[in-house]
Amino acid sequence: MQPPLKSLDYFQKSYDIRVGQLKEKRVRGTKIIGTFCLFVPDEIIFAAGADRLVLCGGRTDTIARAEQSLPRNICPLIKSSFGAVVDACCGGNLSCAHVQLVDVVVAEATCDGKKKMYELLPEYLPTYVLDLPQKPGSPEAITYFLSELRKFGTYLEDLTGNAINEEQLKKEINSSNETRRLLHRLFDMRRCDPPPITGSEVLQVMQKQFFLSPDQFREGIRQLCEEMEHRIPPARSGPRIMISGCPMSAGNTKISDIVEKKGAVIVVEESCTGTRSFWDLVEEDKEPWTALAERYLRIPCACMTPNDQRISHIVDLARRYHVDGIVYYTLQFCHGYNIERLRVQKALKKEKIPLLAIESDYGDSDVEQIGIRIDAFLEMVS
Amino acid sequence: MQPPLKSLDYFQKSYDIRVGQLKEKRVRGTKIIGTFCLFVPDEIIFAAGADRLVLCGGRTDTIARAEQSLPRNICPLIKSSFGAVVDACCGGNLSCAHVQLVDVVVAEATCDGKKKMYELLPEYLPTYVLDLPQKPGSPEAITYFLSELRKFGTYLEDLTGNAINEEQLKKEINSSNETRRLLHRLFDMRRCDPPPITGSEVLQVMQKQFFLSPDQFREGIRQLCEEMEHRIPPARSGPRIMISGCPMSAGNTKISDIVEKKGAVIVVEESCTGTRSFWDLVEEDKEPWTALAERYLRIPCACMTPNDQRISHIVDLARRYHVDGIVYYTLQFCHGYNIERLRVQKALKKEKIPLLAIESDYGDSDVEQIGIRIDAFLEMVS
Repeated sequence: MQPPLKSLDYFQKSYDIRVGQLKEKRVRGTKIIGTFCLFVPDEIIFAAGADRLVLCGGRTDTIARAEQSLPRNICPLIKSSFGAVVDACCGGNLSCAHVQLVDVVVAEATCDGKKKMYELLPEYLPTYVLDLPQKPGSPEAITYFLSELRKFGTYLEDLTGNAINEEQLKKEINSSNETRRLLHRLFDMRRCDPPPITGSEVLQVMQKQFFLSPDQFREGIRQLCEEMEHRIPPARSGPRIMISGCPMSAGNTKISDIVEKKGAVIVVEESCTGTRSFWDLVEEDKEPWTALAERYLRIPCACMTPNDQRISHIVDLARRYHVDGIVYYTLQFCHGYNIERLRVQKALKKEKIPLLAIESDYGDSDVEQIGIRIDAFLEMVS
Repeated sequence: MQPPLKSLDYFQKSYDIRVGQLKEKRVRGTKIIGTFCLFVPDEIIFAAGADRLVLCGGRTDTIARAEQSLPRNICPLIKSSFGAVVDACCGGNLSCAHVQLVDVVVAEATCDGKKKMYELLPEYLPTYVLDLPQKPGSPEAITYFLSELRKFGTYLEDLTGNAINEEQLKKEINSSNETRRLLHRLFDMRRCDPPPITGSEVLQVMQKQFFLSPDQFREGIRQLCEEMEHRIPPARSGPRIMISGCPMSAGNTKISDIVEKKGAVIVVEESCTGTRSFWDLVEEDKEPWTALAERYLRIPCACMTPNDQRISHIVDLARRYHVDGIVYYTLQFCHGYNIERLRVQKALKKEKIPLLAIESDYGDSDVEQIGIRIDAFLEMVS
């Protein structure tokens, strides 16, 4: 086993610095926005002089709190996120330092579970919800989403007292694109055989993008890319696996960890904590609001219908990263990704790329069983 | 027990007549549209000279067929509907005469499960999907939905070869409103104590509205209202129960039957097979497309956020129908209605109206357990 990449320490160390930064910002009157999803454009938040962190929960310990009101049979991410809010706002001591750093929540009408959970949030935190058209292809859908983004802009202007000007918005777009380009540079190196970094390492880095400041995160990725570019190729290798499906929020690394402990190497993640977060850039030469509406509505989340662009993206990634097999990951009770699996599987069958479907929650009770299934899968694709 | 209402026979007899009518229409070139949801306006379909029937499945026997591809842990209505399509289009003999009467399916982006199931339909039947904004309150949402309705109109014009003119559309609006007024007349009589009709009887009638022709259905409701207006009040009475929640499609009368077998009387159903299907009329003096967009987007389905209008509607109905208790019905794994229950329950608590939550599928295995819970609930509210 190769020694871990030194630059990964940067991300660990940045955590406390960021907490301090956010606390200080709040004292100085900066509004901190909590979000739950990639569909809320960071660029608009930053252009309004606010800051943001993503509140999606990957921890199991807040779920019991959520289940005091939410149904048991909904996705663990929703329960974990809601439980963290309830706990933090009702003087609990479970976690979640992040919730307490936030002034308002900005959510979006994505999946049924999240959409309805958001209706319960205003009891704990001021909540603003962006609507999303669900058939993203048409000009009318772009127009509708654009109107939602502009309303959101006005909401932020009222909240922060700062006007959002076009120049600032363009600056934020360029800056977010810079992050996206760096992530492409990082992910490109994973095409090597063997790749210079493990999937578990990348996942932990990707989870940090939702908490660190953009500057901090970019600096970390820059250091990481530089170190990787000069790294001696690791001795270890194994079947090249793509993870595809639901997000793995901070605290949840279960499936990636099992896959790599079993001797495979994850070379790419098609998920909100993988390619979906950075793949497409925002057009820089366009009117910025329209460019944002177009780019964000293109995010191939399973809440969109039909989601053909996701399916062709998965096939492209499988080729580009020389993937031996795909582990399709569904958070338990996530109907969107669960049903969409059928179309993904069909497309991959044509390409002769095997797929293993795993549906799981945040608990430990299925770790052994998943391990056995992954063992069998890796034997098959080796 | 009072003898059953004679007019109910009308609905039974109409079934075969309607099947014959649809077959004949198809021979003559009329296009038959299969729909799955209240959000697709019948008026537009009829104004294009097409006919329609609703394909939502309430039967358990098509579910096994669906589970050959769909995940097990999604709602039984979705599985039953999909199974019927697969079975009918693959030469199965389970059912479903209805699917074979249909030329195309027109679906809508409501819940996650349906939305993703629709993506699998084109393999079996031509499928058109209407988008729905999910935050229905804003003028921009109306504009977007209006554009979706107009596109749908154009699609129907191409399909049928008939132009949709404003006059015809207005005529269809008036005619659908006439049905809605008749249903108000029927439901109003259920405010009596005891009501002149049982909930199980009403449910079977309401399920027919999705299959019979509008003329047939109106005639049946007219006869039924007249008979009820002259009926001797039934001797039987019991706690007055409202059913609220998910639709009960033809074939599924499980919960209503149990509730009334246990001695209660259902006086109103707040569901797609109850008030949601007819409560609001379309404005007749308005530009018809806009009037349709406004009325249909007001349907208080749990796919909308926030769905405050549903909650206040439930409270209104509970008062208007002098309800002793509410049975809140969720189809298993329906996140929307399941999570929305919390807000409904809170509103009802203020009104001191007890609620019993039941989540169930189409199987028989929980009939005894549900019976015991309903027994206890009725004892409490009596």
